[in-house]
Amino acid sequence: MQIACFIYDGITALDIVGPYEVLQRLPGADLRFVAKEAGAVTTDNGLLGLVARDALRDVTAPDIVVVPGGWGSRALERDHEVLDWIRAVHTTSTWTTSVCTGSLVLGAAGVLDGLEATTHWAQLERLREFGATPTGRRVVPQGKVVTAAGVSSGIDMALWLAAEVAGVEWAQGIQLGIEYDPQPPFDAGSPDKAPAAVVTMLRDLFAARA
Amino acid sequence: MQIACFIYDGITALDIVGPYEVLQRLPGADLRFVAKEAGAVTTDNGLLGLVARDALRDVTAPDIVVVPGGWGSRALERDHEVLDWIRAVHTTSTWTTSVCTGSLVLGAAGVLDGLEATTHWAQLERLREFGATPTGRRVVPQGKVVTAAGVSSGIDMALWLAAEVAGVEWAQGIQLGIEYDPQPPFDAGSPDKAPAAVVTMLRDLFAARA
Repeated sequence: MQIACFIYDGITALDIVGPYEVLQRLPGADLRFVAKEAGAVTTDNGLLGLVARDALRDVTAPDIVVVPGGWGSRALERDHEVLDWIRAVHTTSTWTTSVCTGSLVLGAAGVLDGLEATTHWAQLERLREFGATPTGRRVVPQGKVVTAAGVSSGIDMALWLAAEVAGVEWAQGIQLGIEYDPQPPFDAGSPDKAPAAVVTMLRDLFAARA
Repeated sequence: MQIACFIYDGITALDIVGPYEVLQRLPGADLRFVAKEAGAVTTDNGLLGLVARDALRDVTAPDIVVVPGGWGSRALERDHEVLDWIRAVHTTSTWTTSVCTGSLVLGAAGVLDGLEATTHWAQLERLREFGATPTGRRVVPQGKVVTAAGVSSGIDMALWLAAEVAGVEWAQGIQLGIEYDPQPPFDAGSPDKAPAAVVTMLRDLFAARA
Protein backbone atom coordinates (compact mmCIF):
# COMPACT_ATOMS: atom_id res chain seq x y z
CA MET A 1 0.00 0.00 0.00
CA GLN A 2 1.67 3.15 -1.22
CA ILE A 3 1.16 6.35 0.79
CA ALA A 4 2.23 9.67 -0.74
CA CYS A 5 2.94 12.45 1.75
CA PHE A 6 3.25 15.61 -0.34
CA ILE A 7 5.60 18.30 0.98
CA TYR A 8 6.50 21.74 -0.34
CA ASP A 9 8.17 25.03 0.57
CA GLY A 10 6.06 26.84 3.14
CA ILE A 11 4.54 23.70 4.67
CA THR A 12 3.58 23.53 8.35
CA ALA A 13 5.63 20.57 9.53
CA LEU A 14 3.15 19.10 12.02
CA ASP A 15 0.47 18.94 9.29
CA ILE A 16 2.36 16.13 7.60
CA VAL A 17 4.46 14.65 10.41
CA GLY A 18 1.32 13.83 12.44
CA PRO A 19 -0.31 11.70 9.71
CA TYR A 20 3.07 10.28 8.67
CA GLU A 21 3.80 9.04 12.18
CA VAL A 22 0.47 7.15 12.15
CA LEU A 23 0.29 5.92 8.56
CA GLN A 24 3.89 4.63 8.34
CA ARG A 25 2.84 2.10 11.02
CA LEU A 26 0.13 0.53 8.84
CA PRO A 27 0.81 -3.06 7.74
CA GLY A 28 2.56 -3.10 4.37
CA ALA A 29 2.95 0.67 4.30
CA ASP A 30 5.21 1.95 1.51
CA LEU A 31 5.25 5.59 2.58
CA ARG A 32 6.95 8.19 0.38
CA PHE A 33 7.62 11.86 0.97
CA VAL A 34 7.15 13.51 -2.42
CA ALA A 35 7.81 17.07 -3.57
CA LYS A 36 7.94 18.88 -6.90
CA GLU A 37 11.56 17.78 -7.05
CA ALA A 38 13.37 15.29 -4.82
CA GLY A 39 15.37 17.04 -2.10
CA ALA A 40 14.70 19.33 0.83
CA VAL A 41 11.79 21.72 1.21
CA THR A 42 11.66 24.36 3.91
CA THR A 43 8.87 24.93 6.42
CA ASP A 44 6.70 28.06 6.66
CA ASN A 45 9.09 29.76 9.10
CA GLY A 46 12.31 28.78 7.33
CA LEU A 47 13.55 26.83 10.34
CA LEU A 48 13.31 23.20 9.28
CA GLY A 49 14.15 21.32 6.12
CA LEU A 50 12.20 18.17 5.26
CA VAL A 51 13.70 15.86 2.66
CA ALA A 52 11.56 14.25 -0.07
CA ARG A 53 13.01 11.11 -1.64
CA ASP A 54 10.70 11.26 -4.65
CA ALA A 55 9.49 13.83 -7.16
CA LEU A 56 5.80 14.05 -8.04
CA ARG A 57 6.47 12.46 -11.43
CA ASP A 58 7.91 9.38 -9.69
CA VAL A 59 4.77 8.67 -7.67
CA THR A 60 1.89 8.21 -10.07
CA ALA A 61 -0.54 5.82 -8.40
CA PRO A 62 -0.45 6.03 -4.59
CA ASP A 63 -3.24 4.32 -2.67
CA ILE A 64 -3.35 7.12 -0.09
CA VAL A 65 -2.52 10.78 -0.76
CA VAL A 66 -1.99 13.31 2.04
CA VAL A 67 -1.91 17.04 1.20
CA PRO A 68 -0.86 19.14 4.20
CA GLY A 69 -1.29 22.88 4.78
CA GLY A 70 0.88 25.85 5.61
CA TRP A 71 1.33 29.42 4.38
CA GLY A 72 2.92 27.99 1.23
CA SER A 73 -0.30 26.24 0.24
CA ARG A 74 -1.75 29.48 -1.14
CA ALA A 75 0.72 29.43 -4.03
CA LEU A 76 -0.17 25.82 -4.78
CA GLU A 77 -3.77 26.82 -5.51
CA ARG A 78 -2.40 28.25 -8.79
CA ASP A 79 0.39 25.71 -9.38
CA HIS A 80 -0.68 23.66 -12.40
CA GLU A 81 1.99 21.00 -11.94
CA VAL A 82 0.74 20.27 -8.43
CA LEU A 83 -2.95 20.55 -9.31
CA ASP A 84 -2.51 18.23 -12.31
CA TRP A 85 -0.72 15.70 -10.10
CA ILE A 86 -3.50 15.80 -7.52
CA ARG A 87 -6.17 15.35 -10.20
CA ALA A 88 -4.23 12.45 -11.72
CA VAL A 89 -3.54 10.53 -8.50
CA HIS A 90 -7.07 11.19 -7.25
CA THR A 91 -8.51 9.22 -10.18
CA THR A 92 -6.89 6.00 -8.90
CA SER A 93 -6.39 6.64 -5.16
CA THR A 94 -8.25 4.71 -2.51
CA TRP A 95 -8.13 7.74 -0.19
CA THR A 96 -7.41 11.38 -0.98
CA THR A 97 -6.84 13.35 2.21
CA SER A 98 -5.80 16.76 3.47
CA VAL A 99 -4.84 18.54 6.66
CA CYS A 100 -5.41 22.24 7.39
CA THR A 101 -5.20 24.47 4.28
CA GLY A 102 -4.24 21.43 2.23
CA SER A 103 -7.97 21.15 1.60
CA LEU A 104 -7.89 24.45 -0.28
CA VAL A 105 -5.36 22.86 -2.65
CA LEU A 106 -7.63 19.85 -3.08
CA GLY A 107 -10.40 22.37 -3.73
CA ALA A 108 -8.38 24.19 -6.37
CA ALA A 109 -7.80 20.82 -8.05
CA GLY A 110 -11.57 20.33 -8.21
CA VAL A 111 -11.67 17.46 -5.74
CA LEU A 112 -14.08 19.06 -3.25
CA ASP A 113 -16.82 20.28 -5.59
CA GLY A 114 -20.18 19.44 -4.03
CA LEU A 115 -18.67 17.92 -0.87
CA GLU A 116 -18.64 18.94 2.78
CA ALA A 117 -15.09 19.75 3.85
CA THR A 118 -13.01 21.39 6.54
CA THR A 119 -9.71 23.28 6.89
CA HIS A 120 -8.03 25.51 9.49
CA TRP A 121 -10.83 27.30 11.38
CA ALA A 122 -9.59 30.74 10.27
CA GLN A 123 -9.90 29.76 6.58
CA LEU A 124 -13.17 27.81 6.63
CA GLU A 125 -15.20 30.19 4.47
CA ARG A 126 -12.66 29.96 1.65
CA LEU A 127 -13.82 26.39 0.95
CA ARG A 128 -16.90 27.91 -0.74
CA GLU A 129 -14.61 29.23 -3.53
CA PHE A 130 -14.20 25.61 -4.62
CA GLY A 131 -17.81 24.49 -4.41
CA ALA A 132 -17.42 22.85 -1.02
CA THR A 133 -19.63 23.29 2.03
CA PRO A 134 -17.55 24.23 5.10
CA THR A 135 -18.06 22.29 8.31
CA GLY A 136 -16.34 22.79 11.64
CA ARG A 137 -16.00 19.07 12.31
CA ARG A 138 -12.43 17.90 12.93
CA VAL A 139 -12.34 15.02 10.46
CA VAL A 140 -14.72 15.05 7.49
CA PRO A 141 -14.94 11.88 5.39
CA GLN A 142 -16.91 12.19 2.14
CA GLY A 143 -16.57 8.94 0.26
CA LYS A 144 -12.86 8.52 -0.41
CA VAL A 145 -12.08 12.19 0.26
CA VAL A 146 -11.16 13.04 3.87
CA THR A 147 -10.36 16.57 4.97
CA ALA A 148 -9.14 17.48 8.45
CA ALA A 149 -9.08 20.75 10.40
CA GLY A 150 -6.00 22.77 11.40
CA VAL A 151 -2.43 21.48 11.89
CA SER A 152 -2.69 18.95 14.74
CA SER A 153 -5.94 17.41 13.45
CA GLY A 154 -4.00 15.26 11.01
CA ILE A 155 -3.20 12.85 13.85
CA ASP A 156 -6.90 12.25 14.49
CA MET A 157 -7.62 11.97 10.77
CA ALA A 158 -4.85 9.43 10.26
CA LEU A 159 -6.02 7.28 13.17
CA TRP A 160 -9.54 7.28 11.75
CA LEU A 161 -8.09 6.29 8.38
CA ALA A 162 -5.88 3.60 9.95
CA ALA A 163 -8.99 1.92 11.35
CA GLU A 164 -10.67 2.05 7.94
CA VAL A 165 -7.63 0.52 6.26
CA ALA A 166 -6.40 -1.98 8.85
CA GLY A 167 -9.16 -2.32 11.45
CA VAL A 168 -9.80 -0.85 14.87
CA GLU A 169 -7.34 -3.01 16.79
CA TRP A 170 -4.44 -2.06 14.53
CA ALA A 171 -5.36 1.62 14.79
CA GLN A 172 -5.50 1.32 18.58
CA GLY A 173 -2.05 -0.28 18.48
CA ILE A 174 -0.72 2.70 16.56
CA GLN A 175 -2.36 5.08 19.03
CA LEU A 176 -0.74 3.23 21.93
CA GLY A 177 2.61 3.08 20.10
CA ILE A 178 2.73 6.86 19.78
CA GLU A 179 1.17 7.21 23.26
CA TYR A 180 -1.54 9.49 21.89
CA ASP A 181 -3.42 10.10 25.12
CA PRO A 182 -3.75 13.85 24.70
CA GLN A 183 -3.85 15.98 27.84
CA PRO A 184 -3.53 19.59 26.73
CA PRO A 185 -3.14 21.90 29.74
CA PHE A 186 -5.89 24.19 28.39
CA ASP A 187 -9.13 23.69 26.50
CA ALA A 188 -8.49 26.37 23.90
CA GLY A 189 -7.96 24.37 20.74
CA SER A 190 -10.98 25.60 18.78
CA PRO A 191 -12.60 29.02 18.36
CA ASP A 192 -15.69 27.73 20.21
CA LYS A 193 -13.62 26.86 23.26
CA ALA A 194 -10.83 29.46 23.47
CA PRO A 195 -11.36 32.72 25.39
CA ALA A 196 -12.78 35.43 23.11
CA ALA A 197 -9.68 37.61 23.52
CA VAL A 198 -7.48 34.76 22.31
CA VAL A 199 -9.70 34.14 19.28
CA THR A 200 -9.59 37.84 18.39
CA MET A 201 -5.79 37.91 18.78
CA LEU A 202 -5.42 34.97 16.42
CA ARG A 203 -7.94 36.28 13.87
CA ASP A 204 -6.03 39.57 13.72
CA LEU A 205 -2.72 37.75 13.36
CA PHE A 206 -3.98 35.56 10.52
CA ALA A 207 -5.67 38.50 8.78
CA ALA A 208 -2.42 40.48 8.87
CA ARG A 209 -0.52 37.61 7.29
CA ALA A 210 -3.06 36.32 4.76
CA MET B 1 15.18 33.25 23.75
CA GLN B 2 17.16 30.47 22.09
CA ILE B 3 15.53 27.05 21.77
CA ALA B 4 17.68 24.09 20.75
CA CYS B 5 15.82 21.16 19.17
CA PHE B 6 18.32 18.32 19.05
CA ILE B 7 17.90 15.83 16.18
CA TYR B 8 19.83 12.69 15.26
CA ASP B 9 19.74 9.58 13.10
CA GLY B 10 17.04 7.24 14.34
CA ILE B 11 14.81 9.98 15.77
CA THR B 12 11.03 9.63 15.87
CA ALA B 13 9.94 12.70 13.91
CA LEU B 14 6.80 13.58 15.88
CA ASP B 15 8.82 13.65 19.12
CA ILE B 16 10.50 16.86 17.98
CA VAL B 17 8.04 18.29 15.45
CA GLY B 18 5.29 18.48 18.09
CA PRO B 19 7.30 20.65 20.53
CA TYR B 20 8.86 22.62 17.66
CA GLU B 21 5.45 23.54 16.25
CA VAL B 22 4.50 24.98 19.67
CA LEU B 23 7.78 26.53 20.82
CA GLN B 24 8.61 28.31 17.53
CA ARG B 25 5.45 30.39 18.18
CA LEU B 26 6.76 31.80 21.48
CA PRO B 27 7.49 35.53 21.45
CA GLY B 28 11.11 36.17 20.55
CA ALA B 29 11.79 32.52 19.79
CA ASP B 30 15.15 31.83 18.15
CA LEU B 31 14.62 28.14 17.49
CA ARG B 32 17.46 26.03 16.08
CA PHE B 33 17.50 22.44 14.92
CA VAL B 34 20.89 21.10 15.97
CA ALA B 35 22.62 17.82 15.24
CA LYS B 36 26.10 16.39 15.72
CA GLU B 37 26.91 17.97 12.36
CA ALA B 38 24.83 20.43 10.35
CA GLY B 39 22.86 18.68 7.61
CA ALA B 40 20.19 16.03 7.33
CA VAL B 41 19.50 13.26 9.79
CA THR B 42 17.20 10.34 9.00
CA THR B 43 14.24 9.16 11.05
CA ASP B 44 13.93 5.76 12.76
CA ASN B 45 12.31 4.14 9.71
CA GLY B 46 14.63 5.73 7.13
CA LEU B 47 11.73 7.49 5.41
CA LEU B 48 12.22 11.15 6.28
CA GLY B 49 15.21 13.45 6.40
CA LEU B 50 15.19 16.39 8.83
CA VAL B 51 17.74 19.13 8.23
CA ALA B 52 19.70 20.71 11.09
CA ARG B 53 21.10 24.16 10.40
CA ASP B 54 23.54 24.03 13.31
CA ALA B 55 26.04 21.61 14.81
CA LEU B 56 26.10 20.99 18.55
CA ARG B 57 29.30 23.00 18.88
CA ASP B 58 27.54 26.06 17.41
CA VAL B 59 24.80 26.13 20.04
CA THR B 60 26.43 26.45 23.42
CA ALA B 61 23.96 28.30 25.64
CA PRO B 62 20.32 27.71 24.64
CA ASP B 63 17.61 28.82 27.04
CA ILE B 64 15.47 25.78 26.25
CA VAL B 65 16.78 22.36 25.23
CA VAL B 66 14.53 19.63 23.79
CA VAL B 67 15.85 16.06 23.53
CA PRO B 68 13.46 13.81 21.58
CA GLY B 69 13.29 10.01 21.47
CA GLY B 70 13.37 7.28 18.88
CA TRP B 71 15.12 3.95 18.35
CA GLY B 72 18.31 5.91 17.71
CA SER B 73 18.35 7.31 21.23
CA ARG B 74 19.79 4.08 22.63
CA ALA B 75 23.13 4.73 20.92
CA LEU B 76 23.17 8.27 22.35
CA GLU B 77 23.23 6.88 25.88
CA ARG B 78 26.88 5.99 25.17
CA ASP B 79 27.73 8.92 22.90
CA HIS B 80 30.13 11.12 24.83
CA GLU B 81 29.92 14.04 22.43
CA VAL B 82 26.16 14.22 22.89
CA LEU B 83 26.23 13.56 26.63
CA ASP B 84 28.93 16.21 27.15
CA TRP B 85 26.85 18.71 25.17
CA ILE B 86 23.75 17.98 27.24
CA ARG B 87 25.70 18.35 30.49
CA ALA B 88 27.21 21.62 29.28
CA VAL B 89 24.01 23.27 28.07
CA HIS B 90 22.11 22.03 31.11
CA THR B 91 24.35 24.09 33.39
CA THR B 92 23.04 27.34 31.86
CA SER B 93 19.63 26.38 30.44
CA THR B 94 16.39 27.77 31.81
CA TRP B 95 14.60 24.55 30.84
CA THR B 96 16.00 21.14 29.94
CA THR B 97 13.30 18.93 28.43
CA SER B 98 12.77 15.58 26.77
CA VAL B 99 10.13 13.62 24.91
CA CYS B 100 9.79 9.82 24.92
CA THR B 101 13.13 7.99 25.19
CA GLY B 102 14.91 11.33 25.08
CA SER B 103 14.66 11.17 28.86
CA LEU B 104 16.94 8.12 28.88
CA VAL B 105 19.57 10.27 27.16
CA LEU B 106 19.08 12.99 29.77
CA GLY B 107 19.42 10.21 32.33
CA ALA B 108 22.67 8.95 30.81
CA ALA B 109 23.98 12.52 31.01
CA GLY B 110 23.22 12.53 34.74
CA VAL B 111 20.44 15.09 34.55
CA LEU B 112 17.70 12.94 36.12
CA ASP B 113 19.52 11.60 39.18
CA GLY B 114 17.14 11.82 42.15
CA LEU B 115 14.24 13.19 40.10
CA GLU B 116 10.87 11.84 39.10
CA ALA B 117 10.72 11.38 35.33
CA THR B 118 8.81 9.75 32.52
CA THR B 119 9.43 8.28 29.07
CA HIS B 120 7.62 6.04 26.59
CA TRP B 121 5.37 3.71 28.66
CA ALA B 122 7.18 0.61 27.38
CA GLN B 123 10.55 1.91 28.66
CA LEU B 124 9.52 3.39 32.01
CA GLU B 125 11.47 1.01 34.23
CA ARG B 126 14.73 1.87 32.45
CA LEU B 127 14.67 5.29 34.12
CA ARG B 128 15.83 3.58 37.34
CA GLU B 129 19.20 2.86 35.65
CA PHE B 130 19.87 6.59 35.88
CA GLY B 131 18.71 7.19 39.45
CA ALA B 132 15.31 8.52 38.42
CA THR B 133 11.93 7.48 39.79
CA PRO B 134 9.55 6.50 36.98
CA THR B 135 6.08 8.01 36.89
CA GLY B 136 3.33 7.41 34.39
CA ARG B 137 2.26 11.06 34.30
CA ARG B 138 2.28 12.60 30.82
CA VAL B 139 4.31 15.72 31.62
CA VAL B 140 6.66 15.67 34.60
CA PRO B 141 8.24 18.98 35.66
CA GLN B 142 10.99 18.75 38.29
CA GLY B 143 12.44 22.21 38.73
CA LYS B 144 13.85 23.19 35.37
CA VAL B 145 13.85 19.61 34.06
CA VAL B 146 10.70 18.51 32.25
CA THR B 147 10.26 15.01 30.85
CA ALA B 148 7.30 13.92 28.75
CA ALA B 149 5.85 10.50 27.89
CA GLY B 150 5.84 8.82 24.47
CA VAL B 151 5.99 10.50 21.04
CA SER B 152 2.85 12.67 20.88
CA SER B 153 3.18 13.88 24.50
CA GLY B 154 5.68 16.52 23.42
CA ILE B 155 2.80 18.70 22.23
CA ASP B 156 1.27 18.73 25.71
CA MET B 157 4.67 19.30 27.31
CA ALA B 158 5.44 22.23 25.04
CA LEU B 159 2.08 23.89 25.68
CA TRP B 160 2.70 23.58 29.43
CA LEU B 161 6.13 25.09 28.92
CA ALA B 162 4.75 27.87 26.69
CA ALA B 163 2.49 28.96 29.54
CA GLU B 164 5.42 28.98 31.97
CA VAL B 165 7.53 31.06 29.59
CA ALA B 166 4.97 33.42 28.05
CA GLY B 167 1.80 33.12 30.12
CA VAL B 168 -1.45 31.23 29.79
CA GLU B 169 -3.04 33.48 27.17
CA TRP B 170 -0.10 33.15 24.80
CA ALA B 171 -0.08 29.38 25.26
CA GLN B 172 -3.81 29.27 24.53
CA GLY B 173 -3.15 31.33 21.40
CA ILE B 174 -0.61 28.76 20.24
CA GLN B 175 -3.04 25.94 21.00
CA LEU B 176 -5.73 27.67 18.94
CA GLY B 177 -3.25 28.45 16.16
CA ILE B 178 -2.41 24.77 15.73
CA GLU B 179 -6.07 23.86 16.37
CA TYR B 180 -5.06 21.41 19.07
CA ASP B 181 -8.51 20.21 20.07
CA PRO B 182 -7.68 16.51 20.09
CA GLN B 183 -10.45 14.07 19.23
CA PRO B 184 -8.84 10.66 18.80
CA PRO B 185 -11.36 8.14 17.48
CA PHE B 186 -10.37 5.66 20.22
CA ASP B 187 -9.31 5.92 23.85
CA ALA B 188 -6.32 3.63 23.55
CA GLY B 189 -3.39 6.01 24.01
CA SER B 190 -2.01 4.61 27.25
CA PRO B 191 -1.54 1.06 28.56
CA ASP B 192 -4.18 1.75 31.24
CA LYS B 193 -6.78 2.55 28.60
CA ALA B 194 -6.02 0.33 25.60
CA PRO B 195 -7.55 -3.16 25.32
CA ALA B 196 -5.32 -5.79 26.95
CA ALA B 197 -4.73 -7.56 23.63
CA VAL B 198 -3.45 -4.34 22.08
CA VAL B 199 -1.10 -3.70 25.01
CA THR B 200 0.28 -7.23 24.74
CA MET B 201 0.75 -6.85 20.97
CA LEU B 202 2.73 -3.64 21.46
CA ARG B 203 4.80 -5.01 24.36
CA ASP B 204 5.80 -7.99 22.21
CA LEU B 205 6.63 -5.71 19.29
CA PHE B 206 8.81 -3.43 21.41
CA ALA B 207 10.51 -6.37 23.14
CA ALA B 208 11.40 -7.90 19.78
CA ARG B 209 12.97 -4.66 18.59
CA ALA B 210 14.68 -3.45 21.77
